[in-house]
Amino acid sequence: MTFSHSHLLGIEPLAPADITAILDLADDYVALNRRDVKHADALKGLTQINMFFENSTRTQASFELAGKRLGADVMNMAMQASSIKKGETLIDTAMTLNAMHPDLLVVRHPHSGAVDLLAQKVRCAVLNAGDGRHEHPTQALLDALTIRRAKGRLHRLNIAICGDIAHSRVARSNLLLLGKMENRVRLIGPPTLMPAQMQDFGVEVYDDMREGLKDVDVVMMLRLQKERMDGGFIPSEREYYHRYGLDGEKLAYAKEDAIVMHPGPMNRGVEIDGEIADDINRSVIQDQVEMGVAVRMAAMDLLARNLRARRAEAVEGA
Amino acid sequence: MTFSHSHLLGIEPLAPADITAILDLADDYVALNRRDVKHADALKGLTQINMFFENSTRTQASFELAGKRLGADVMNMAMQASSIKKGETLIDTAMTLNAMHPDLLVVRHPHSGAVDLLAQKVRCAVLNAGDGRHEHPTQALLDALTIRRAKGRLHRLNIAICGDIAHSRVARSNLLLLGKMENRVRLIGPPTLMPAQMQDFGVEVYDDMREGLKDVDVVMMLRLQKERMDGGFIPSEREYYHRYGLDGEKLAYAKEDAIVMHPGPMNRGVEIDGEIADDINRSVIQDQVEMGVAVRMAAMDLLARNLRARRAEAVEGA
Amino acid sequence: MTFSHSHLLGIEPLAPADITAILDLADDYVALNRRDVKHADALKGLTQINMFFENSTRTQASFELAGKRLGADVMNMAMQASSIKKGETLIDTAMTLNAMHPDLLVVRHPHSGAVDLLAQKVRCAVLNAGDGRHEHPTQALLDALTIRRAKGRLHRLNIAICGDIAHSRVARSNLLLLGKMENRVRLIGPPTLMPAQMQDFGVEVYDDMREGLKDVDVVMMLRLQKERMDGGFIPSEREYYHRYGLDGEKLAYAKEDAIVMHPGPMNRGVEIDGEIADDINRSVIQDQVEMGVAVRMAAMDLLARNLRARRAEAVEGA
Repeated sequence: MTFSHSHLLGIEPLAPADITAILDLADDYVALNRRDVKHADALKGLTQINMFFENSTRTQASFELAGKRLGADVMNMAMQASSIKKGETLIDTAMTLNAMHPDLLVVRHPHSGAVDLLAQKVRCAVLNAGDGRHEHPTQALLDALTIRRAKGRLHRLNIAICGDIAHSRVARSNLLLLGKMENRVRLIGPPTLMPAQMQDFGVEVYDDMREGLKDVDVVMMLRLQKERMDGGFIPSEREYYHRYGLDGEKLAYAKEDAIVMHPGPMNRGVEIDGEIADDINRSVIQDQVEMGVAVRMAAMDLLARNLRARRAEAVEGA
Repeated sequence: MTFSHSHLLGIEPLAPADITAILDLADDYVALNRRDVKHADALKGLTQINMFFENSTRTQASFELAGKRLGADVMNMAMQASSIKKGETLIDTAMTLNAMHPDLLVVRHPHSGAVDLLAQKVRCAVLNAGDGRHEHPTQALLDALTIRRAKGRLHRLNIAICGDIAHSRVARSNLLLLGKMENRVRLIGPPTLMPAQMQDFGVEVYDDMREGLKDVDVVMMLRLQKERMDGGFIPSEREYYHRYGLDGEKLAYAKEDAIVMHPGPMNRGVEIDGEIADDINRSVIQDQVEMGVAVRMAAMDLLARNLRARRAEAVEGA
Repeated sequence: MTFSHSHLLGIEPLAPADITAILDLADDYVALNRRDVKHADALKGLTQINMFFENSTRTQASFELAGKRLGADVMNMAMQASSIKKGETLIDTAMTLNAMHPDLLVVRHPHSGAVDLLAQKVRCAVLNAGDGRHEHPTQALLDALTIRRAKGRLHRLNIAICGDIAHSRVARSNLLLLGKMENRVRLIGPPTLMPAQMQDFGVEVYDDMREGLKDVDVVMMLRLQKERMDGGFIPSEREYYHRYGLDGEKLAYAKEDAIVMHPGPMNRGVEIDGEIADDINRSVIQDQVEMGVAVRMAAMDLLARNLRARRAEAVEGA
């Protein structure tokens, strides 16, 4: 096993072998979770702190469950919006936490780069649970595991990411991961929600769903942030659904065995037709949630092994 | 032991033998808790998720303590009012949780029937911690245990339930349980807070406290929801206390050894005189809280045994 | 070891030997925490409830981590402001909790004396995590441990406490502790934020920082409650910083090896210059946080030993 990182801050710094190491271990945890074998004790005696500067019930629950299943002491810190006005405060918060000797720090923050900054100030392992428009690595990893299990491989697939690409850290982390694993990625969405020069990154860009979905293996829908509506980006929910919502007619352009993904929570009837979301032959949306717990168990387990190894070296060196 | 249910959704589906099984086991847990023997490990390795769509510090704390004492990994999910606008969303939430492989799901929800609906969608054991005006089974069970311990039996007792009957799931679950165990139940309250046709259910209805309390063994007060005041239901707190509040003069109509109950939190001087609430010869209000933890330990223990048995069968069958 | 108290309600009831007993044990826990040796299991099987009637992310996190590191089941109860209007309610809350058989109760409350009142009503060990303007004993103990480790002793030191003395329970607990250990304490702050007759307590009072800091060993800054501003107490942040904020020029009046303390969270540029706060040669602000976890572990450990001894006696006596 080659995974040698101290933190999981994004997909960008990972090599394909790192990604494979996480996914392989996550596969083992999926099997354990399904057989209701809990408490592998990989994190026994370690303290995991979840610091969410943005609310996310689902992601926080997934990290909390993952930590508890592995025997960690998990503490959730409610970080109020009021305490993040100044850049200084984040550093002070980081230093304060560091002084409490945590082992794993899971951080979500509204500002891109905030988690990287924090990781430079603490001695423990930091996991990025989403920072601004930058990265959301465990989401990309759980999507990758879902794809690999459904398709039997994670390379040479045609994958469409659809929706609000410009504001999405999910899209960004997925684009990085899927590119590293040598897939062909297409981006589909309204031009107002598409970042400039995406073509330079070797991806194809479409603003027509039917054209973009043609012969893809995987359809990855993004959540529409409703605050974008009527703000110049999108005219209305109905209009958006008409043009970019995934319904049966548009999905018919994809491969017959194409899978449908969504990071949740869904806006049914806006990004996706409810029936497609519930179609167990096409939708792997529930699998994504299940893979989320397993991938987070795997990532924390690997980081904890490296943390313990570094500490043992430090003791020997002393 | 006969308890064979997969969920605890209400008192309605329980047989008298089921109720007795829960109360008997709860008696054992009372003894262990009093001797400060913790961690019976009945739930070791299991994950309990508390999902409260309505705030209830006391009930959530009681379930949390019960789970932790039995060795479960307990996770509280803060469910915001904003996420429960659509029926769809509850199902999506249920499916999401289900994918995380919890073992016990404790749910409070403002809509009657919501917990039953949720139970149909998940593979784990579901406990109803109160749904709308429908049921609150663990409250009825803890009341039953309190009565059985104070009176030495749980049948052929005269029991008065007093207050806002119409809006109370506590009243409804108690009525069902006490009826199943062959007690005589009277309902006392203002006609505006009394459901129609209660006489058809074999209960006596009074709007005069003195008449209704005559010779009862148990006086069970309900909490007054203050939002009912001045909304056409009740003229004022003072008027309500005068007519329906439990004071010494009214209590004198009950049997000399009648016990006084209240599910808490109390509005002293509205539903009940503070001195009566604190009178250790009459009030069993603190016992109710103690029995609450024990009854929840017993219910979760029994459900976990059945869950494990079903899973073992599924493995053998496979 | 001489510590024989049932609760930790304040510094006032402690003898110097009690303080030394807590600090000595805390020193051991600092060493364990630094070597990442967790779970001394001193609190295994015990239930710790954190009841914070005022928000305090840092203090609550410190107590939660301390409890979890020692193997306690820790439960945080969100106490809403709405539930503390009446004195009765606090007692009802206390009685309710007591009926749930907790072992350690950590309480923060906005009213002076509320925690003492609560302690009289429950059978478990109570720790005051700050009550009104009264006491905050674990803060004074962590400050004492920080001073003792930095200065090699906790007596015959010249210590200046600077800022809003009148409203500060931190100042009050520190004043008591440092006095008991035979140090010379000076108070520095605006006359509007200085309680009357402090001279009677054997402390020197200054309203000039340069004069007050002259030759001190320890400079202890207090947090400025911004709600005091423009309310007649203080003209403005800028004016406050100019007169009472700790900067390099003022600190130069203290001893060359004087340490700088702050209970956090800091208002940089108001009470203290950011560069001094970060100067690892002078500032022990991060150490204070680290000592906070260790001191709370020690206090809970000692109280749990006494609790267990009392219970064992009760069983023998029965």
